[in-house]
Amino acid sequence: MERRIPVIGIIGLGLIGGSVGLALRAHGGWRVVGHDRLEEVRVGAIEIGACDDVAASVEDLARESDIVMVATPSSLIPETGLLAARFMRRGAILTDAGSVKLPLQELIAGALPVGVKYIGGHPMAGSERSGLPAASPGLFRGAVWALTAFAADREALDEVQALVRATGANPLVVDAGEHDAAVAYASHLPYVLAVALALSVERKTREIPLVRTLLAGGFRDTTRLARSDPRIAMDYCALNRGALLEAIAEFEECLRSMKADLEAVDYRALESEAERARGYLEGLSRKG
Amino acid sequence: MERRIPVIGIIGLGLIGGSVGLALRAHGGWRVVGHDRLEEVRVGAIEIGACDDVAASVEDLARESDIVMVATPSSLIPETGLLAARFMRRGAILTDAGSVKLPLQELIAGALPVGVKYIGGHPMAGSERSGLPAASPGLFRGAVWALTAFAADREALDEVQALVRATGANPLVVDAGEHDAAVAYASHLPYVLAVALALSVERKTREIPLVRTLLAGGFRDTTRLARSDPRIAMDYCALNRGALLEAIAEFEECLRSMKADLEAVDYRALESEAERARGYLEGLSRKG
Repeated sequence: MERRIPVIGIIGLGLIGGSVGLALRAHGGWRVVGHDRLEEVRVGAIEIGACDDVAASVEDLARESDIVMVATPSSLIPETGLLAARFMRRGAILTDAGSVKLPLQELIAGALPVGVKYIGGHPMAGSERSGLPAASPGLFRGAVWALTAFAADREALDEVQALVRATGANPLVVDAGEHDAAVAYASHLPYVLAVALALSVERKTREIPLVRTLLAGGFRDTTRLARSDPRIAMDYCALNRGALLEAIAEFEECLRSMKADLEAVDYRALESEAERARGYLEGLSRKG
Repeated sequence: MERRIPVIGIIGLGLIGGSVGLALRAHGGWRVVGHDRLEEVRVGAIEIGACDDVAASVEDLARESDIVMVATPSSLIPETGLLAARFMRRGAILTDAGSVKLPLQELIAGALPVGVKYIGGHPMAGSERSGLPAASPGLFRGAVWALTAFAADREALDEVQALVRATGANPLVVDAGEHDAAVAYASHLPYVLAVALALSVERKTREIPLVRTLLAGGFRDTTRLARSDPRIAMDYCALNRGALLEAIAEFEECLRSMKADLEAVDYRALESEAERARGYLEGLSRKG
């Protein structure tokens, strides 16, 4: 008898959920069932080929899935994931795409029904655009997809890793707390800085309209993250509040040091800080 | 008798000077003579077609040019420009591509020989790459090229505007002091923030190596400016020190306000700041 094609159920068909569906269907080997609370998004997901089928409810989706991935905004993941888990079959796996892992793991792992495994997930790919229209089958190609495997069995982890590889991403098993500290610096701090920069420039524009005229590519790059959906950002700011506050404080210290050099007219010290920053960034490019 | 083709002499054949030469030669209507203190760069400029000819000295270049553009690092512009001016013919025009205008105007305009006009210039285009190999004929296409016309006559301004248009840029006559305040926010503050962000991430990487692994596109965009040549950056930090310090202080205030919201668990206030930033940035995109 032929082995049944495994079913992945994706809840939340936005940028991430939609892109996972497109990538898996392009790859083959999975049946992709999607659910979104908005009917127009469910219809759209079928139209663009992000799903083989859609389910009208979380319950329907959960009943037929071997793996359920919750790709809603982070704040909705625990409730949505635990709702799905009530209807998942024994041996099925729950995973998610939330950008903060420790609080989700704590809320979900302890409340799961017996027989359902949880593997936390975080694809390190995105865009300042959000929603299904921004989805793309290549979104995860070459990106790291962090997985947290707290108390999960080896087999469940292997299955989620295979799923992640099928999207084009590279799975990387990490500690949830370390992950959250790392993304506070790698993603959440840059977002906050981009917003604060846009706000200070906006304020100055009111005094000197020329500011706006002279904005160029450097400003555009530096503020790109501040074009992201604020509601999604608020979710990770809230879930990762402690680590983010620490990262902001660390950043403020680095900025204060540069400001002190400038105040002291010590351009040699300032240049050596700029050299160190450039060296670090060039080292990253070399990593591949 | 045919009118002689005007000669533009470009001193400093790096990213900006090289790109001006390439753009003008692609456009036609000018004879481009270049000078760089490095012989290899002079040879390279001929090879890539950035100049019709090169001059071995500032003096030789100045003697044959109708317009001299100084495209050296900003700190060398006053000395280089005034040296060139000693040999320029009566009625010739001195301009530059320095990113800070008021200090240059003050140093140059008062010390010019009679008969030589100075029009300050600043092309709002660049790249984190520098040097002749990064030069491109399309670098200025659609970019604003600020011009300061302190005490200059109308005819000289017209000639420089025609030159600027021939590079593909849009000339914009501005007040030098307003220009400097504006670029402190539009360019120099983003650079300082990019450096400080890279430094805080570098520091955290030493404690948690995973930070480096989880860096993604958002971090790359936000820190792109910190890949620029620190020596060039030090020049504008030094020349625009007062305005930059004010911009940093304004930024710190915006960041402190966001941090206070986060500390107070006031996500509604934080979200409204994020919305305001996004609205400002979206308004910029619409400007075209």
